[in-house]
Amino acid sequence: MSSPIPVTLLEISNGIADCPGFKTAGVACDVRETGDEERLDMAMVVAEAPCPVAGVFTQNDVCAAPVLLCKQIMAGSNSKVAGFVANSGNANAVTGEQGMTDAKEMGAIAQLSSGIGSPFMICSTGRIGRKLPMDKIKDGIEKAAKSLSDDAQSSHNAADAILTSDTRRKVATAQFVYEGKTVTVSGMAKGAGMIEPNMATMLAFITSDVVSNSEQLKNVLTVAVNQTFNRISIDGDMSTNDTVLLFANGKSGVDPWDAPASVLFAFKEAVHMVCDTLAEKIVGDGEKVTKLVEIVVEGCPRVRDAEKVARAVGNSLLVKTSWYGSDPNWGRLADAAGYARIGLKEELFDIYYDDVPALINGVPQDANLPQWKDIVSKNRFRITLNLNQGSCDYRLLTSDLSEAYVNFNKSE
Amino acid sequence: MSSPIPVTLLEISNGIADCPGFKTAGVACDVRETGDEERLDMAMVVAEAPCPVAGVFTQNDVCAAPVLLCKQIMAGSNSKVAGFVANSGNANAVTGEQGMTDAKEMGAIAQLSSGIGSPFMICSTGRIGRKLPMDKIKDGIEKAAKSLSDDAQSSHNAADAILTSDTRRKVATAQFVYEGKTVTVSGMAKGAGMIEPNMATMLAFITSDVVSNSEQLKNVLTVAVNQTFNRISIDGDMSTNDTVLLFANGKSGVDPWDAPASVLFAFKEAVHMVCDTLAEKIVGDGEKVTKLVEIVVEGCPRVRDAEKVARAVGNSLLVKTSWYGSDPNWGRLADAAGYARIGLKEELFDIYYDDVPALINGVPQDANLPQWKDIVSKNRFRITLNLNQGSCDYRLLTSDLSEAYVNFNKSE
Repeated sequence: MSSPIPVTLLEISNGIADCPGFKTAGVACDVRETGDEERLDMAMVVAEAPCPVAGVFTQNDVCAAPVLLCKQIMAGSNSKVAGFVANSGNANAVTGEQGMTDAKEMGAIAQLSSGIGSPFMICSTGRIGRKLPMDKIKDGIEKAAKSLSDDAQSSHNAADAILTSDTRRKVATAQFVYEGKTVTVSGMAKGAGMIEPNMATMLAFITSDVVSNSEQLKNVLTVAVNQTFNRISIDGDMSTNDTVLLFANGKSGVDPWDAPASVLFAFKEAVHMVCDTLAEKIVGDGEKVTKLVEIVVEGCPRVRDAEKVARAVGNSLLVKTSWYGSDPNWGRLADAAGYARIGLKEELFDIYYDDVPALINGVPQDANLPQWKDIVSKNRFRITLNLNQGSCDYRLLTSDLSEAYVNFNKSE
Repeated sequence: MSSPIPVTLLEISNGIADCPGFKTAGVACDVRETGDEERLDMAMVVAEAPCPVAGVFTQNDVCAAPVLLCKQIMAGSNSKVAGFVANSGNANAVTGEQGMTDAKEMGAIAQLSSGIGSPFMICSTGRIGRKLPMDKIKDGIEKAAKSLSDDAQSSHNAADAILTSDTRRKVATAQFVYEGKTVTVSGMAKGAGMIEPNMATMLAFITSDVVSNSEQLKNVLTVAVNQTFNRISIDGDMSTNDTVLLFANGKSGVDPWDAPASVLFAFKEAVHMVCDTLAEKIVGDGEKVTKLVEIVVEGCPRVRDAEKVARAVGNSLLVKTSWYGSDPNWGRLADAAGYARIGLKEELFDIYYDDVPALINGVPQDANLPQWKDIVSKNRFRITLNLNQGSCDYRLLTSDLSEAYVNFNKSE
């Protein structure tokens, strides 16, 4: 084994502009048709030359046209693509045949206006069930193609243009050096609502400058997504449009598959770090979230048992509202863990707030109440549930549920 | 076949007092230890003579001591019991061995103070993880035993004593006549929070005056519960204490199992009607509920597929908050139906608000928007989802989610 190569997460990321060999743009074209000409809602990213891409998509039976189109493109083009175009404000989901026609039209406009012959990946996010305003979309894509640039401002604009109910831009960059060459992985994402397993109303775009092919990228991306984006939950609603794409343009000249094992390991680590950072930013910026909660379930017979318990607890309305109220109500944690129905034995069951026990072998540790209260009052804390019935565990990053969430979502 | 016997649901029910041969009591004993000496929190019901009972219980792995005790009693006593004692304000759940000792002690106190040798069923509801205040409990049971009566006021008191966050008493009575003899089924329930499949923080007590045994009662009760209490959902949280009990004291002299088929049919119908009425009252009085929504899923290959779709839609936070806001956001309905992942085909999918189409064969019926808006603004409406992929259906009664729910549950 070669010795490990350190991977660094940049303290300040400019998103995709950090990755050499990609140009970005983010423009306003009023996709929402509200007359707002300022709100950025169309992003475009292109590689210097057609490049391989890998994708992970929603598993919802109701799957938006752009998701279907991305899958078609990846199947048909040896996965070499120009880049991608993504709009916010309209999901182009449940739009029937017209939806697919419109998604393809977006791709054709992108090719025409950028002058690139390779296909573009197409993504949309926003309200379901409305046809795309194709005149606005056309204007937007044309404007974006004209303003493509490798500067930081364009990259910020692209990252802003994919946001919907997000309140903050989400970008991340990781780098490592191999034989004097810097390898970069950078990304941008949007989240905010419908955040559940198998991703979310979540789009994430990761670019890198390694030499690779789409199959190799797919392997790296799948592992990273399972460990990061699939382990966050805000409201338990899986969207019709979830997409994570990983591009590699080869610009660094480093091929992790044709190098010592430590290089591939470093690349995987860099992709993981970028995905993990974006995933955490998504939960932290969940709709009207006031607290970030890490649920760690330990001591299960199987990983899927641990996941079931973690999701039951993390998606329980009664649990989430008690966090919102800073109420150390571990009874609700125990109740939710129990209805995951994996065969939990109460007399073996431990619960901790951070490192402070609330329940040990099914016995309440009431003397610690003041400490539980302090911990659950913080804006970030950890709940550990140890079933002591095996050696498998699972970690889920989730949030509280506030009155403001309900108010925010009561109409769109 | 004998001709059907009409079964009548009483317009005004006095609860268990409507059923001859049962005495009831509801008293205050400050189970919550707040110093409130007025709030009724201990109910007792006894049959004139020991009678058979059947029960259906929570399937939560974390199961309260009284639930375990009830199961033991039913296994050990040929299911002939004196009646039941139920307290609100403390669930006696996750209370370890002490919890079981306390539950048994409740039974012993009830036998001693009532002078009845047969066992009592024991139920508790309220906060999880706190030991019962046994001195208060003892006072309460003794007081209840002294005030047992067959009058309506006692019955109202008993129905009130089991309530927690409920705002209204929940009682129902159904009757039919066979050969000049009136047969009565009456019941009382509590609901309000943690209302999900396999019941809820839900207690329901059904009494009847048929001649029966516990096995016969169990068959009737299981069918009725599956069709009623198991088809309601408020917040998706299954509790540790859910219990439905059906008692039969034989006082009417009618044995439905030794009579024409129409008599058993009428008895089943009466039990169903009482359960259904109580179930609907539970959803209607869900914590801070403003709307009652009936979800009908049709056209599925299997009933369990239809149930999955109904529960995905009925438990979606984004769907429930849109109902709260009177927003006819059928896109969220489609999204939630899709992530049930039963293989829904978008191009066959129909959605209706009451009888007004929102989506037909995957095509939005946008001209109907004003009508959807009117319907979703009502305080009770129906959503029909037809997958057109089979002949099985499922009905779920659920509710919206309000800001007040979150505020109400943020601490206990």
